[in-house]
Amino acid sequence: MIHTVSQFRVRYAETDRMQVVHHRNYLVWFEAARIEMLDQIELPYTKVEAEGFFIPVLSATVDYKKPAFFDDRLEVHLYLREKPRARFRFDYQVWREGEILATGHTTHGFMDSQGKALRPPDAFLARVLAAWTASEG
Amino acid sequence: MIHTVSQFRVRYAETDRMQVVHHRNYLVWFEAARIEMLDQIELPYTKVEAEGFFIPVLSATVDYKKPAFFDDRLEVHLYLREKPRARFRFDYQVWREGEILATGHTTHGFMDSQGKALRPPDAFLARVLAAWTASEG
Amino acid sequence: MIHTVSQFRVRYAETDRMQVVHHRNYLVWFEAARIEMLDQIELPYTKVEAEGFFIPVLSATVDYKKPAFFDDRLEVHLYLREKPRARFRFDYQVWREGEILATGHTTHGFMDSQGKALRPPDAFLARVLAAWTASEG
Amino acid sequence: MIHTVSQFRVRYAETDRMQVVHHRNYLVWFEAARIEMLDQIELPYTKVEAEGFFIPVLSATVDYKKPAFFDDRLEVHLYLREKPRARFRFDYQVWREGEILATGHTTHGFMDSQGKALRPPDAFLARVLAAWTASEG
Repeated sequence: MIHTVSQFRVRYAETDRMQVVHHRNYLVWFEAARIEMLDQIELPYTKVEAEGFFIPVLSATVDYKKPAFFDDRLEVHLYLREKPRARFRFDYQVWREGEILATGHTTHGFMDSQGKALRPPDAFLARVLAAWTASEG
Repeated sequence: MIHTVSQFRVRYAETDRMQVVHHRNYLVWFEAARIEMLDQIELPYTKVEAEGFFIPVLSATVDYKKPAFFDDRLEVHLYLREKPRARFRFDYQVWREGEILATGHTTHGFMDSQGKALRPPDAFLARVLAAWTASEG
Repeated sequence: MIHTVSQFRVRYAETDRMQVVHHRNYLVWFEAARIEMLDQIELPYTKVEAEGFFIPVLSATVDYKKPAFFDDRLEVHLYLREKPRARFRFDYQVWREGEILATGHTTHGFMDSQGKALRPPDAFLARVLAAWTASEG
Repeated sequence: MIHTVSQFRVRYAETDRMQVVHHRNYLVWFEAARIEMLDQIELPYTKVEAEGFFIPVLSATVDYKKPAFFDDRLEVHLYLREKPRARFRFDYQVWREGEILATGHTTHGFMDSQGKALRPPDAFLARVLAAWTASEG
C-alpha cells in the first residue's frame, strides 16, 4: 500500500453562500494530493505529461460527512491499496483535527495526448512497486 | 419519476491543460440542473433557503466516459426516480449530440442554517408529488 | 463601436461565504461575453484557435459597485469602442434590472500556440470592421 | 509599508486549455495573500468576520506579463504602501524564480454583514500601525 498525506488550508474562494466549502473543491484537493503522491514516488506529473502520458479521471465519488469551513487546516490522506493495472484507484480521507470530514475515491487510467488508452508506462509501475515495497519495509 | 433537461455551453474557464473540461465542473452543472428542476416544480431554491432550509450534497459520484470540450453544447438530464424521503437521490446524464459523455448521481437531505438535519418540508414533498403525478399523466 | 449583450444566471458555485458572488467570477463572465461577441461577428473562438491563433488576456480591471447574488439574472454589456490594432480593449458593464453592479475592461492581443505575439489575423479585422460598419448603419 | 510573501504551487485545476493558468486565478492568490498578511499582523480574517466586519473587494486590476504554468512555484508579494483610511489598497507582484509574471492591485473597505460601509475597526488600524512601525525598525 502507498499512503501519502497532503495539507490544505481552505481558501475563501472555496466557500459558498451556505458558508461551507463548496463540494466541487474536494475533487481539486484530491487531484493536488495525487500530484504530491507522484512527487513522493519521484515521478512528478509534469514529467509524466512531458513524456506524452496523461492520467485522466475515469470516475470520482465523494461522501460528505461534515462540512469544512473557511480557513480550516485539512489533511487529505491518499491510499493506493491495490497495485495498478490498466486501471487503478485511489482512496481519500479528508481530516480536520482528528475527525473525518469526507471520504472518496477516484479511478484512473493512462492515455496519450489524443485520448487513446495506454498501458501504464513501465517507469510508473516500477516507481509504484518500489514505493510499495519500501512502505512495507 | 421527474425528468428535466438543462442546457450548458462549455466555458473556456471550465477547461484545463488536458484540453478537456476539468472533471470538477460536472458537479457544478449537476447543481445548476437541480436548481432548474426546482424551478420547474415551482419551488425555486432561493425560496427554499429564504424559508430556512438548505439542501446539502451528501454524496456525489461521476463516471466520465468521454471528454467534453470547450464550447460544446451539452444537455444535462436529471432524474428523480424514487420519491424523496429523509434523503433523496438525483441521477444525471450528460449528453452531447446523441452520445452520453458522463453519468452520475448525488444524494441530498434537508438541514437548517445550523446544519441540523430536517425532514423535507411539506411544500417540497407536495410539489414533488404534484410534478410526479403530472409526469405520469 | 461594437456592442453585444450576454445573459447570465448566477450559479450557486459562484457565491462565497460573504453570500455574494465571489469577485473572480466577473472575469469568467467577461470571457464568456467575449466568446459570444465573436459568435455574433461570425468568427467563433473555436475557429480562431483552430487556425492557430490565441487571444490571451493582457490586463483586466473590475470595479465592483454593488454585490451580485445567487440566482440573479445579469446582463453583461460588452463594448469595443476603438478599432483593434496590435492590442485591443473591451469594456464591460454588469447590469441587474436597471442598475449597474460592476464595470471593467480587459486588454488583449493575438499570439500563436507558443505564446509569440502576432498581428491580428486579417479575418478578424475584416469581421470587426464589417460589424462596426453595420452597427453604424 | 507592510510587505508579506506567500507561496503557491500552481494546481492542475487552475490551468485552462491554453495550457497556462487561467487569468481569474490570480485574484484567488491575491486573496489568499491578503489572508496571510492578516495572519502576520495577528488579526486573522476569521476573527475579523467573527466580530461582524467584512473586507470586500471594491476594485481589482491585474497586468499579465508572462504566463504561469501547471506546477510552477510562485511567490506573491503583497505591499501595503499607504496607511489604511476608509479605503485601502494592496499591491501585488507574482514572481517565479527571479522574474515577475504579473502585477496587480486591489482596493478594499470595511462593511457590516448587511453590506453597509464602516470605518476600519480600531483593532485593524492598531495592528497595521504596529506592523508598519516594526517594518521600519
